[in-house]
Amino acid sequence: MTATTTQNSSQSTAKGTLYVVSAPSGAGKTSLLKAVLGQMPELKLSISHTTRQQRPGEVNGQDYHFVTVETFQQMLKEESFLEHAEVFGNYYGTSRVWLESQLELGHDVVLEIDWQGARQVRELMPECRSIFILPPSQDELLSRLTGRGQDSEEVIQSRMAAAHREIEHFDEYDYIVINDDFDLACKDLSAIFTARRLRKESQLVRQQALLADLLNQ
Amino acid sequence: MTATTTQNSSQSTAKGTLYVVSAPSGAGKTSLLKAVLGQMPELKLSISHTTRQQRPGEVNGQDYHFVTVETFQQMLKEESFLEHAEVFGNYYGTSRVWLESQLELGHDVVLEIDWQGARQVRELMPECRSIFILPPSQDELLSRLTGRGQDSEEVIQSRMAAAHREIEHFDEYDYIVINDDFDLACKDLSAIFTARRLRKESQLVRQQALLADLLNQ
Repeated sequence: MTATTTQNSSQSTAKGTLYVVSAPSGAGKTSLLKAVLGQMPELKLSISHTTRQQRPGEVNGQDYHFVTVETFQQMLKEESFLEHAEVFGNYYGTSRVWLESQLELGHDVVLEIDWQGARQVRELMPECRSIFILPPSQDELLSRLTGRGQDSEEVIQSRMAAAHREIEHFDEYDYIVINDDFDLACKDLSAIFTARRLRKESQLVRQQALLADLLNQ
Repeated sequence: MTATTTQNSSQSTAKGTLYVVSAPSGAGKTSLLKAVLGQMPELKLSISHTTRQQRPGEVNGQDYHFVTVETFQQMLKEESFLEHAEVFGNYYGTSRVWLESQLELGHDVVLEIDWQGARQVRELMPECRSIFILPPSQDELLSRLTGRGQDSEEVIQSRMAAAHREIEHFDEYDYIVINDDFDLACKDLSAIFTARRLRKESQLVRQQALLADLLNQ
């Protein structure tokens, strides 16, 4: 329904931008995005489809789109997913239809995925913009991954190795944000989203009425 | 001297960006830029060369580069200016050498010029980014140009006509900022400057040491 409404009114809606955001654990990606999304109502976090069990308190269509394995596999067959992954026996995927309806409505959408998912998305939607978030130093990364000292050296080493495997791909991204000072990193992230909405191509549509008023002599 | 030093250390300096900012009078361009420049030390306002008389309180090399008509004409002949104009019998111009030395040092430079100057600059430095600032409505523009009611209808009409001649060119610019709420417009302008410094190409150079540290296993 949403998609149909959007197409009818597309003359007055500037298409949103898809942002792919990746980071190693310990970079603070989720907290940063939560803070920025809270300040920018026109920015939406992508809601994944998943086959995993709905947990108490989770809302279908808000936390996830909960679907059966059959539905997920049917969607896979129909190439409905922009990217998908299997984690601990459950499927997770980003529906292309849902995403495109959001972009048509003029919303910017943020996809929190790893470098492998980012590659899949870039292939299908090369117009997306990608952002990589980094911790401010190796020492700080180690300290953030060490947690409260309750984990074994082995567990920590394996987390660091996983973080390094992600970090190695930072240069595949359009933007790099360093999360040293949290507030500054929030400001940096917001700046990327804001600047893109100020481009002429976007403003010509969003500010149509104002521009007509100003050009009227 | 500066330019030579820069070239020697160019491996560790990301080149700055040249921003061309235009607006009709009444859009608040100068106040906005003053506020944003005060918050961003890495952003510099371009200092023009001029043949006009230095006024009491003005500092050579800070307010303007004051030069003789002969020097200016020599510079013109040597194609030293990125753009230039004659206003009330005085010459004003932006020196390409000065500008390029600032960009080589990694500073972003803002050029406050009209749409005609902007066209000259775009031709010579197509990698520049241009920003157009607009008032929030025709009524508000009229009210801002009317001033304190001390000017004749004719003067006001001529200001409005001049503003319209500038506004007509807004779509030659990369970004459009609406100055309705001053603080919001400042934030928007800053976002454009900030986002560009976060691009991978810029961060790869500016964050060289951090990236080397993070990739070191």
